Amino acid sequence: MRIVYSEKHKLHATDEVLKEGNPFITEEIPARAEKILSAIRSAHLGTITEPSDHGLEPILAVHDADFVHHLREVYFENAAYWGKPEAVFPHAFAVRQSRRKPRGFLGQLGYYAFSSGTPILEGTWEAAYWSVQTALTAADFLLAGDRSVYALCRPPGHHAARDFYGGFCYLNNAAIAARYLGTGGARVAILDLDYHHGNGTQEIFYDDPLVMFCSLHADPDENYPYYWGGADEVGEGPGKGANRNWPLPRDTDDESYLQTLELALDAILTFSPEHLVVSAGFDILAGDPVGGFAITNDGLRRIGCLVASLDIPTVIVQEGGYAIEHLGEYAVTFLKSFS
Amino acid sequence: MRIVYSEKHKLHATDEVLKEGNPFITEEIPARAEKILSAIRSAHLGTITEPSDHGLEPILAVHDADFVHHLREVYFENAAYWGKPEAVFPHAFAVRQSRRKPRGFLGQLGYYAFSSGTPILEGTWEAAYWSVQTALTAADFLLAGDRSVYALCRPPGHHAARDFYGGFCYLNNAAIAARYLGTGGARVAILDLDYHHGNGTQEIFYDDPLVMFCSLHADPDENYPYYWGGADEVGEGPGKGANRNWPLPRDTDDESYLQTLELALDAILTFSPEHLVVSAGFDILAGDPVGGFAITNDGLRRIGCLVASLDIPTVIVQEGGYAIEHLGEYAVTFLKSFS
Repeated sequence: MRIVYSEKHKLHATDEVLKEGNPFITEEIPARAEKILSAIRSAHLGTITEPSDHGLEPILAVHDADFVHHLREVYFENAAYWGKPEAVFPHAFAVRQSRRKPRGFLGQLGYYAFSSGTPILEGTWEAAYWSVQTALTAADFLLAGDRSVYALCRPPGHHAARDFYGGFCYLNNAAIAARYLGTGGARVAILDLDYHHGNGTQEIFYDDPLVMFCSLHADPDENYPYYWGGADEVGEGPGKGANRNWPLPRDTDDESYLQTLELALDAILTFSPEHLVVSAGFDILAGDPVGGFAITNDGLRRIGCLVASLDIPTVIVQEGGYAIEHLGEYAVTFLKSFS
Repeated sequence: MRIVYSEKHKLHATDEVLKEGNPFITEEIPARAEKILSAIRSAHLGTITEPSDHGLEPILAVHDADFVHHLREVYFENAAYWGKPEAVFPHAFAVRQSRRKPRGFLGQLGYYAFSSGTPILEGTWEAAYWSVQTALTAADFLLAGDRSVYALCRPPGHHAARDFYGGFCYLNNAAIAARYLGTGGARVAILDLDYHHGNGTQEIFYDDPLVMFCSLHADPDENYPYYWGGADEVGEGPGKGANRNWPLPRDTDDESYLQTLELALDAILTFSPEHLVVSAGFDILAGDPVGGFAITNDGLRRIGCLVASLDIPTVIVQEGGYAIEHLGEYAVTFLKSFS
């Protein structure tokens, strides 16, 4: 299996962030991708390739241009405004009944975001940009005939919608790859296996009949991202029926996860896509500091085998997973099922 | 002039808050109300009265019942969930395209809030409850024949809408007093003179033809609360025309403020209300750490005189103002214009 990876993710150096002068502790740190890379190397899983640059066009096919401008520029606007460079965090948000999009960057901070724990650092744009290129390059290999390719993306992407970011995500790698694979009208399915609902991906394709979004995730009544992820969210307009959510209870184990996964895979087979994008989050494993399921390593292997048995050309895009010391093992287990 | 004040505001002890283990510094502290009270006492401005308890009914005439329940209970739900009592801050928010209201309190945190700098402490509910009773008791004096009454409310209220809080505000004291004064169909005008747009008050009465909302405030393109406060927000449905916003540029001085105020007072006179509620924020004065206007103490006196010249029975409700050492002087200056 080919692996696509860029060192640029380290520019999103979340292990050194200050928020209002105090250390900002986050689980989404560069070591995540490094641990996975190192385990993949040791396991000789396949050739590791640098991403090629596809430019902004595939990004703008998914994200709002003003939003992209904001992600690129806000760190520098903020530094100029306050007279010092520092991590950018939104404080106020454009919630229900909001009536205007402010012209200044201070208000745009919370217009383009939905949570306060996702800092924009000096290198965030470049890291997010190359995370997208990583997914796009994996898609290129698929289009060239590979059966499965792994995009070791960081930062992750599935919480980023057309024009707002949050949940450690800025640009939606999986969604951008899916739209790119769908160029010319090909049907694409996205299977989101992260612990958290992929609200950004859902919203991007909510009315799109050519991209199916299927997600297994923790019940949003009790889990991030809270405001999306219900089983009754089925898409709208021409996309109605092409969005499927399976919220699962805390402590979900291998057997019940696999049973639900079969339902999702049936839905995908019925949709009959030419390509599959898997948003892979290893935060479903027991013991993940952010998760709450009880999936075992063997369960993860079986999940991978079941998805691979669809025999659809598949790009696997890295999303969450925060048990740093185990991430490499999880990635190798999951990816081996595809080869 | 009668003054209504309750010591209960001190229960909202924002000078001792920790956020994720670090001191949370806020401008909205108990000393604000204490400084004002002390100056009013020294100036022998009038009788200081404790509020009487009007119960929940007038609160529920303005706010959503589930929202009120959340404000009352979330501190304790949060303490039980995490196993320790601590200030409650939302992190994720129900922004555009949100599709569900989560059942658990963790998600409700950001469903019922629009900013992350407004902590809920153990005593917040009781302080906010008595801040409302303070405004209601002032309204009682008005209904009994007083021409002007001052409600020394803390926490402030004008950013709190029907079912979300933020900007140091939890329950909307001015809106609750206005609806209470309007019982039976009386026309009421609210004049919001705080530096920040009173988005909560606006939204509560946005379609209400019997309560006019007029606000002078800092341009929301650059200032909190950002997503409300444009001059084009004029009300809707039967309330169309009964909402008027005058956003003003940074460094607005006495003369241009007073000129704009005359426009607002003309609109109020045309509306011909039986009662007036003034949301008074002293953050319009030059040097306020949160504000950005250049109003002088004499300008404030002239603002008060102009409002008083309307000769409409008026409840003055305290909103913002953060120049601690000057707040007492400002309050006395403003209130003297009414006596």
